[in-house]
Amino acid sequence: MTKADIVSEISKSTGIDKASVLETLEKFMETVKDSLASGENVYLRGFGSFIVKTRSQKTARNISKNTTIIIPEHKIPAFKPAKVFMEQVK
Amino acid sequence: MTKADIVSEISKSTGIDKASVLETLEKFMETVKDSLASGENVYLRGFGSFIVKTRSQKTARNISKNTTIIIPEHKIPAFKPAKVFMEQVK
Repeated sequence: MTKADIVSEISKSTGIDKASVLETLEKFMETVKDSLASGENVYLRGFGSFIVKTRSQKTARNISKNTTIIIPEHKIPAFKPAKVFMEQVK
Repeated sequence: MTKADIVSEISKSTGIDKASVLETLEKFMETVKDSLASGENVYLRGFGSFIVKTRSQKTARNISKNTTIIIPEHKIPAFKPAKVFMEQVK
């Protein structure tokens, strides 16, 4: 399912025009990204949480060049599905 | 950040009324859950993908009762952030 598919489905079932639905979803995704980029998690009851995880520094091998490289500590975005979501997919 | 915070932010920046924004987001989350429940992944360019992962069967120990339990193969919802999202949070 793509963004366009979701926009049509939402527009069809809510009666809200497609342009407004698309604009809302684009802004939603932008807001979630900006929130996590500024270190603030996003909690959506009944769906899940978008959270920031920290990956500690680690050494990795570049096999082709046979060298060791250090991957510095960094943050990654992650999603924790709500229990009801887990149950629905099980 | 909560659902209410996101609804106000989207409404403020798009000019779309809060009720329509909330209805769109609720329907979005419902559509994603239903899609994954029916085994169909959801791909949102520039944000990420909601996918179904399969966990194979495994044995686990119930330490308090000192018994072994079999956890059958099951599916879980997961989210793979897009590269641009990863870069923004790093």
